[in-house]
Amino acid sequence: MRHIHVIGIGSGDPDQLTLQAVKALRATDVFFLLDKGERKTDLSGLRKGILDTHLPDPSAYRVVEARDPERARESDGAAYSAAVDDWRTRRADIYARMITDELGEDGTGAFLVWGDPSLYDSTFGILEAVLARGGVEFTYDVVPGISSVSALAARHRIGLNRVARPVQITTGRLLAAGFPEGVDDVVVMLDAQQAFRHHVPSGSEDGAEGGTEGGTDDRADGSGGDGGMDIYWGAYIGTPDEILISGPLAEAGPRIERVRAEARERKGWIMDTYLLRRNPDGEQGRGDTGR
Amino acid sequence: MRHIHVIGIGSGDPDQLTLQAVKALRATDVFFLLDKGERKTDLSGLRKGILDTHLPDPSAYRVVEARDPERARESDGAAYSAAVDDWRTRRADIYARMITDELGEDGTGAFLVWGDPSLYDSTFGILEAVLARGGVEFTYDVVPGISSVSALAARHRIGLNRVARPVQITTGRLLAAGFPEGVDDVVVMLDAQQAFRHHVPSGSEDGAEGGTEGGTDDRADGSGGDGGMDIYWGAYIGTPDEILISGPLAEAGPRIERVRAEARERKGWIMDTYLLRRNPDGEQGRGDTGR
Ligand SMILES: C[S@@+](CC[C@H](N)C(=O)[O-])C[C@H]1O[C@@H](n2cnc3c(N)ncnc32)[C@H](O)[C@@H]1O
Ligand SMILES: C[S@@+](CC[C@H](N)C(=O)[O-])C[C@H]1O[C@@H](n2cnc3c(N)ncnc32)[C@H](O)[C@@H]1O
Repeated sequence: MRHIHVIGIGSGDPDQLTLQAVKALRATDVFFLLDKGERKTDLSGLRKGILDTHLPDPSAYRVVEARDPERARESDGAAYSAAVDDWRTRRADIYARMITDELGEDGTGAFLVWGDPSLYDSTFGILEAVLARGGVEFTYDVVPGISSVSALAARHRIGLNRVARPVQITTGRLLAAGFPEGVDDVVVMLDAQQAFRHHVPSGSEDGAEGGTEGGTDDRADGSGGDGGMDIYWGAYIGTPDEILISGPLAEAGPRIERVRAEARERKGWIMDTYLLRRNPDGEQGRGDTGR
Repeated sequence: MRHIHVIGIGSGDPDQLTLQAVKALRATDVFFLLDKGERKTDLSGLRKGILDTHLPDPSAYRVVEARDPERARESDGAAYSAAVDDWRTRRADIYARMITDELGEDGTGAFLVWGDPSLYDSTFGILEAVLARGGVEFTYDVVPGISSVSALAARHRIGLNRVARPVQITTGRLLAAGFPEGVDDVVVMLDAQQAFRHHVPSGSEDGAEGGTEGGTDDRADGSGGDGGMDIYWGAYIGTPDEILISGPLAEAGPRIERVRAEARERKGWIMDTYLLRRNPDGEQGRGDTGR
């Protein structure tokens, strides 16, 4: 029976690999690397660096590369879901073909997943889709990894939650539509629009443009608490290009917008994550500024 | 200058240690191990096992053990926060003394934190409190770890979020007071009361007792979606005692209550975490039932 490891490799620092991940790498015959195009070349370079470091004998394994299909960027909810579904189907075709053609009947394959496979990653969904269609059989297991969320918190030396309080992990798209209900601590991923701009307390805005699709303008920071908000932001976390900025949103927000635009221009791509922390009435955040 | 590593060691499986954590262990002179009393003996055993495995030369480091002060278990919000604050102060006294007395002026110390230091852990808070008082100076850094949340998801082979949707991480106490607003995927930690019982869809309850403090009874699953709820539960994840159960909450919930009570009785302590996943209208969950 074919077996597949889905291996979380951490979110930028090759030393974030776990011992379990290293063991799984060493037990793998064929690595399936999906290339997302030039834009993310650094990332596929990092994946190969991990193989070179931990698998000293290059004849012990094979690498099969495929081009990950592009996904149309739709803006509204339904079209977005449909686009994701279609993209998943095309990816399932590619995965099914790679597994069937490249992995022997008793072979062990692996997918190297960025960060932790449990957060905003489609690998399980695709493998389940491949299994559901039939035609190729395999078992699979999952090796957890250090997510960019854990890495962000570690670099800023903060907890994600406050004592006895919840934390929500969400997307830039959702944050643009409103600050989530019932939580004061929100981690934002997949934010191409700097949605934190919509949550600068009124009166202190600077460079915020508003008007994002579906965005209710709730700058006034509606429900409870008016001690303002802190942001803990990180880009390229764990890599040599890492940038960290933190502070009161009103002050740090515009700075992040500038730094982010420059970095994105310079490198051609960016990956960033942040925690927004709403302070209770009258309390001030730690307010450290940067690394 | 003294330096301290706060090292996430994963949540049960010693192979969840990262390479970065191993390097930090090897760069440490003095390990501060806080013992939470007999109840958690297995855990302090695991910490020592990690040291024995990765530090072959026992003369290269020292272990300083201290008893972690007990914290009174208060039930309501304000008293709970006060109890936690008092407990933190007493812990800060202990930490300050350990660092001052046991660590040389240029020494490197380490605290080994269960799971990932960013989730429901008080170590940063205590170190910041020690620094804020003055009297002892040190720098510190944080090594992220595999949280029990990542480990849970990996063992069940699930994503925490669904496509373009948020996920909330919360406590049993908060879940007992109501299913969080605006999310369908909720990870629950620190749940001594099996708060999932309060969210079994009405009509299918079995053994749920209700009546937890402050608990609004929202079995009817108020906002949106009535395809029911799935639970993905794990106890002692990553250890040889690991137990995993998943399935529709109405069916798996009572089973988890039974299995949990037995395991707790047998071992004298339990640590469990779970994901509650509310299904959209008419959709059925994957409904796999345990390992
Ligand atoms: C498709 S999701 C995958 C997340 C990944 N599974 C994880 O656990 O981090 C990609 C998002 O992760 C975040 N991200 C991943 N790596 C990052 C890094 N090194 N620095 C900052 N953000 C990162 C960004 O928010 C990015 O939009
Ligand atoms: C004080 S919190 C610390 C969490 C830790 N920092 C982490 O990242 O997992 C303790 C809670 O973590 C969860 N937990 C920790 N280890 C676990 C394990 N091995 N299996 C299941 N749950 C675990 C339980 O919900 C427990 O109540």
